[in-house]
Parts: sequence; C-alpha cells; structure tokens
Amino acid sequence: METQSTPPWETLSRIIETEDLTALEAYLATLASGETARAISRLTRADQAKLFTLLGPAEAAELLEGVHDVQAADVIEDLPATQAAAIVDHLQSDRQADVLGELTPTDADAIIQQMDPAGARDVRQLLSYPPDTAGGIMITELLRYADHYRVADVVRDLRLNGHAYSDYDIQYAYVTSANGVLVGVLRLRDLLFARDEQRLVDVMVANPLRVSTRASLEEMRRIFDDHAFVGVPVVDDRDRLVGVARRRALGEAVDEEVTRTFLKLVGIVGREELRTMPLVTRSSRRLSWLSVNIVLNIIAASVIALYQETLARAIILAVFLPIISDMSGCSGNQAVAVSIRELTLGSVRPEELRHVLLKELSLGLVTATVLGLLLGVTALVWQDNMYLGLVVGGALALNTLVAVSLGGLLPLLLRQAGFDPALASGPILTTITDLCGFLLLLSMATAVLPKLAVP
Amino acid sequence: METQSTPPWETLSRIIETEDLTALEAYLATLASGETARAISRLTRADQAKLFTLLGPAEAAELLEGVHDVQAADVIEDLPATQAAAIVDHLQSDRQADVLGELTPTDADAIIQQMDPAGARDVRQLLSYPPDTAGGIMITELLRYADHYRVADVVRDLRLNGHAYSDYDIQYAYVTSANGVLVGVLRLRDLLFARDEQRLVDVMVANPLRVSTRASLEEMRRIFDDHAFVGVPVVDDRDRLVGVARRRALGEAVDEEVTRTFLKLVGIVGREELRTMPLVTRSSRRLSWLSVNIVLNIIAASVIALYQETLARAIILAVFLPIISDMSGCSGNQAVAVSIRELTLGSVRPEELRHVLLKELSLGLVTATVLGLLLGVTALVWQDNMYLGLVVGGALALNTLVAVSLGGLLPLLLRQAGFDPALASGPILTTITDLCGFLLLLSMATAVLPKLAVP
Repeated sequence: METQSTPPWETLSRIIETEDLTALEAYLATLASGETARAISRLTRADQAKLFTLLGPAEAAELLEGVHDVQAADVIEDLPATQAAAIVDHLQSDRQADVLGELTPTDADAIIQQMDPAGARDVRQLLSYPPDTAGGIMITELLRYADHYRVADVVRDLRLNGHAYSDYDIQYAYVTSANGVLVGVLRLRDLLFARDEQRLVDVMVANPLRVSTRASLEEMRRIFDDHAFVGVPVVDDRDRLVGVARRRALGEAVDEEVTRTFLKLVGIVGREELRTMPLVTRSSRRLSWLSVNIVLNIIAASVIALYQETLARAIILAVFLPIISDMSGCSGNQAVAVSIRELTLGSVRPEELRHVLLKELSLGLVTATVLGLLLGVTALVWQDNMYLGLVVGGALALNTLVAVSLGGLLPLLLRQAGFDPALASGPILTTITDLCGFLLLLSMATAVLPKLAVP
Repeated sequence: METQSTPPWETLSRIIETEDLTALEAYLATLASGETARAISRLTRADQAKLFTLLGPAEAAELLEGVHDVQAADVIEDLPATQAAAIVDHLQSDRQADVLGELTPTDADAIIQQMDPAGARDVRQLLSYPPDTAGGIMITELLRYADHYRVADVVRDLRLNGHAYSDYDIQYAYVTSANGVLVGVLRLRDLLFARDEQRLVDVMVANPLRVSTRASLEEMRRIFDDHAFVGVPVVDDRDRLVGVARRRALGEAVDEEVTRTFLKLVGIVGREELRTMPLVTRSSRRLSWLSVNIVLNIIAASVIALYQETLARAIILAVFLPIISDMSGCSGNQAVAVSIRELTLGSVRPEELRHVLLKELSLGLVTATVLGLLLGVTALVWQDNMYLGLVVGGALALNTLVAVSLGGLLPLLLRQAGFDPALASGPILTTITDLCGFLLLLSMATAVLPKLAVP
C-alpha cells in the first residue's frame, strides 16, 4: 500500500547533499506547505541542520512559518543555539513565544541568550505570560502613534514606512499618551473619510475596549463574539499598551487547548507527541501515564482475589468481570467528555454539581436498564441460569449508574479543586468503577452462590 | 458547594413573567455573553418561547450571536417555525447555515420554508455544501464592484452605504466582470493611496488567489498559513464569485472538527450533546455507541469461557484478565490518538503504514518491557510464584506490542478505507486487544498449568 514515487524528503535530502542553494529553493517552492512540514520532519537531524545552514536564517524562518509550532520546535531544538536564535529572530513575536514555549525551559533559554537583545527581552516578556492568557497570545508588532499627531502624519508615515510594516496586521493603529497609556484606536479605514488636518484624537475611537495581559481565553472569546474586531489591544497593570491579541491567535490558542484536552484524556501528557521525536522522549512520556494506570488497575483488580472461593464455584463469572469493567469505563467516559465540553463552553459551572448529577442520574437510569437487560439476558440464555442473569445484569446496571454519575461530576470536582479534569478524570473514574463493579458482581454472586454454582 | 445567590435564569424567568420588555433588555445587558447563553439554556421551553416573542426577531438574533451553534440550535428548534425563521433571517449567512445545520433536516426545512425567499435560497445553497469545505464555511455578505468602476465610485458607495455594510468584514472588496467572474481583489487600505479617477482594474490585485467551493479545510489552512489574508474569495465551477471564506470561520470549523473527533473517540456520536437536550435524545445517542460496544465486549470475553478448566485450577488468573484488558486499551488508545493527530496535522499520510508501524514497534518494545516487568514482578511477589509472574508479565508485554502497533495503524487503515478513524478505531482496537490478551494469558497459563495450580 506504500506509495511508489520517491518521497519528497528523499529528493530534498539528495538536493541538500549537493549544497546547491538555487536547486534547493526551486524545489522547496514546488512543495505545498503541508508537504514541506512533513518533508522537513522526516529528514535526518544532520540533513535538517544542513538545510537550515544552507538557507540562512531569514529563509529558514519563512520556511517554518507554514509549520505547526510543535513541529517547528522539534526542528529548532536540534540546531546549534546560535543558528536557532538567528532563525527565531526572524519569526513574528507571538510565533517566537509559541515555538520557544514548546521547548524545555533550558533549551529555550540557551536560544534566547543568543538572540538579538531587544528581541530577547520581548520574547522573555511574552514567555512570562501563561499561554492561555492575552499576554500569552498577543503580538507586539503594532502601529502606535502619539496623541498629538494629525491624520496627515499617519498617512505620511504609512506611505514612507509601509514596507516595514509588512509583518503587521494593518487594520488598526493605536494612539497612546506620552507615558504609553492607550487612549484610542484608529481604524485605518476611517482615515479614508478624514481630512488631513484633523487630529488623531478627533478621528480615533476614544477609550477603546482593552484587555489585561491576564485576560483568559474565555474572556477574549466573549469579546470577539460580541464585537467584529480583528484584534483587541492588551494593556499592562498601568494601562500601558503592550500588545495586540488577534482573533486569529485566539482561535489557534483555543484549538490548541481542545487538542491538548483530547490528547490528555487518552494519556498523551505534556508536550504533544510527534513520531519524529526521539524514542526516549516518546516512550517516557507515554509510560508516565501508563505506569500510574497500571498501579491503579492492580489495586482495583486485587479485590477480585478476595472472592476466590465464589469464583472457584462459579468460574463463569470470570467472563463477566472484564465486560463490567470495560462497559462502565465507556459509559463513564461519555459523561466525562460531556462535562469537560460543557465546562469549556461555559454552559455549566464547576459548582453546579446537583444540576449535572440529576441530568446524569436520569440518563443513567435509561442506559443502565438497557445495558443491564442486554447483558443479563445474554447471560441467562447462554448459561440457562436466571440467577446468573440477575446478578450479572444487576451489577452492570448499578455500576452504570455509578459510572455516569461519577463521570459527570468528576470534571467539575477536579476543576473546583484546581486540578486538570482532562488529565485526572479518566484514571480516577476507571479505578473507582472497576473497584465498585467487581465488588457489586462478586458480592451479589456470593449472596446467591448456591444458585450459581455448578453442582 | 452550590452557589447561594439566585441563578440568572431564575431572575430572567421572573422578568419574563412580567412581560416588561424594558426591564428585560436592561437585565440582559448586565449579563456577560457566556452567562446569557447559560441562562437561556436553563429556562423552561415555555419561558424561552416567551423570551424570544417579547424580544422580537432582530433582538433575538443579536442575543443568539454570542451563543455557540449547538446551543443556538437547541433554542431555535423549540420555537414555532415562523418565529424561528424570523430570527434566522437576522443572522449572518454563514451563521444561518451553521445553526440550521445542527438541526435535523426536517426541522431545518420547516424553518427555511418560512424564511424570506432570497435568504431561504441562499441558506439552502450554503447548506448544500459539506460543513468541512470552503462552500460550507463561506459567508455570502461581501462588497462586490463591477470592473468598469473607478476609485471614486467605490469611495462614494462606502460613504453612502457604509451603515448597510455593518455586517461585512470590510477589509477587501471584490471586482467582478459582467458575468460575475472574479477578476480582482481590492484591499480597502489601497484606496487610501489611490487617486479618485483611477480605475479599479488598475488598483486591484488582479487574478487573485481563490478557492473552489469544494476546497477542504486543510487546503484553506495552508493558504492562510502561507498568506496573511483575512479572507479568501470562493468561486463556483464557472469561476463566479459566490462567497468569502474567512480565516475566522476556518478557525471555528477546525476547532469544531477537533471537538467532534474528541467526542467521537469516547462515544458521543452525531450532534454534540448538551445536558439541556431532551433525555430521549441524549440517552438514545449514548446507547447507540454503548450497545455496539457491549456486543463486541461479550464476543471478546466469551473466549474466557473456553478456558474454564484452566481458570478453575488457577483462580488467581481472574484478577489479571481485567488488568490486561484495561492496560492494552490504554496503550493502544495513546497510539490511536497520536495517529489521528498526525493525520490532522498532515505529518503522516494514510498510506505510510510501514513508517508508523516501525515507530510504534520500537516504542512498543520499551513500554511492553516496562509494563510487563511491573505486572510480572507484582504477580510473582504477591503469589510467590515465578511461573505466574512469567505468564502474566509475558502476556501483558506481548499484548502491549499488539495494542500499540494496531492502535497506530488502525486510524490510517480506516482513513484509507473511507471510514471515520475517530469513530471506529476505539471499538475495533479494544475488541481485538481484549480477544488477543485473553487468549495470550490463558493459553500461556494452560501450557504451564501444573506450575500455577494450587495443589
């Protein structure tokens, strides 16, 4: 099923060997940006280093523009710090922070120390804000004019320096007072309708909406939902303009948050995994989650050992132990996912336990009845034993109720307690539902053991 | 832990009872948009209907602007079709399609039939495009000028009709020939630097980048990665301008795709679930997934019954069956998640089976060894039986290798075969790893049974 044509990284690798910059640039230009990312990530580390040395920092940075943060970081971290720094210097400020934020603090610091001093100061400042705040997603490239300027001054500056602003989103310019405090926003299209001699303060939107560097993604989402802005100015604690949070960056941050949640739920912890990362990194990250799980699994399953006598007399129960464990996990995880999603959407608050419990209990009654009946009737028909059907079906039904209620509540409780619901809900849920399911099945079976035992 | 103050929906409900529109508007203005969504969703159906009747369609539409699609659809579907249609008429074109797309086709159709005829035609057209294409995310409100216009004509139109364009993203205007074919894009900021008498065709970017209505999210993502555009024009098969795909809408569509993937992985199938939806809808959706799972679970676990004799002589094995089933599921699902993520990022292609298999096998050797040792040593120490340790640890190690390899490959295989990896990977994976794990443990145990059996 493998494709027969030469993969692009092999062609790329051959061209890199020749050290022919013209051929290299010509070939890269033929690749779609998604292809480029994949081709770069598949090169050997040595070839990657050669490629970026050949290209020079500006072109290397341009190449990385089309590559996802985690992939860009993966490439950057293998280069010598001076070379990496030269490339990072050419990225946009928010991208610098995003890519460096994917590295370990030590690796990031080694690169920042080699960067241009002004850029290094800016990116250090940006990295100091959590990635899920306005400070963490803002860009520092912006058009800023003093409040004594007139329309003609701005138009002249734009005509003279337009090329220097090519990195900027030129939709708005910001008007600040002498001490850097934000006093107004100038929509550039308003300049179309203004007269040259008008003062900026008469054309601008005065006292505009702004957010603190600490504003959450949710706060910004509400602002962008309520207003058609492309970006919103970000101010520090003294109301001084420090950056612009763009709608686009917010979208990316939200997307990343959803992805991280999804990966954490199945135990891909910490930085996102790509298969091009070193084996040690990948396996230690996956094991950090698996080893916690196996300990919890052993604890839960050890209760089975307490019922060896019951099991010895009704061996068929051993078939139903994994079924009850798996199905309760499935039912519970559905409720976990809905709660995490509702927390993200804001349609439920962490303290609304009773609301969620009532909703899950009513749903639980329906699903528990259906699943209990399905499994109970299967057991009854298969083994021709009504008591087995009752015990098996009853245990699954009761445990489904436990699983959906607990699954619904856990994310809220964890959020209230300051833990990450995506990371902790799964293991806690399955440990409790396993324990509870095994106890229910085996204790109910023990109670009616004479009816179950093979004579 | 419940909050003591009156929840906003109770206050809202009291105000609705008084039918005092002024008080209602004043209260709604005090709510943050996230709060509004939650408050509306918690009202009784009767109160919701009253609220939207009181407000009138324009204000109701404005209220729904800040509400997530699925929540807006949840509210709309309970209103009489004529009232729902009047509200939908006031939404932006892409939002109309998004909200109506969340309803059943019958419900959506009932509303569309009551809409303003031109709007109904547009939204029917938009709904005909799959939601993950340019046609599905585009907006039809756009500025369009004929190619014989001059700069002064556009500036005059903007000054005269600016208020009518408040719904539009006024960053670009589009220039079309007499038959509607896209010939150029006009960046409005370029008008700043142009002379009144210049012709549009001399100021515009001629032959601009465009996408077909059928372009995928991935294609558009690449375009927005490569270019700083806020929106890209969408054309039909005859190159006629039909809409604009905006960066913002793309971000939302990608966000939604990630969310759906994550929900499907844990078995929330079809339309997203909110706990305010009717119990029947919620439980039938969850059961559609659970009932497939329980059948697969029963099939997998039934192999345990084949080894009743082995189990009867070494009951302790019953403790390890659920552990092997759970742990293999965990390891395999990690690999599934990484594959689904890499497919989304484009860093792996569905046909690259060998690449993924090699990467997962090497990682699998590490995790299998660690997990096998952990469980094997636990069993050995606990039961003081080296053979039990070997059998249990060996079975888990082998099955972990199977689980990670299969977990890595399944999403690629399913994508190749045209199935949805997020929906099908989980159940197929756990069925096979359960089957395989039980067989491995019990057949290995049977082979060394005399060493395991309690005398």
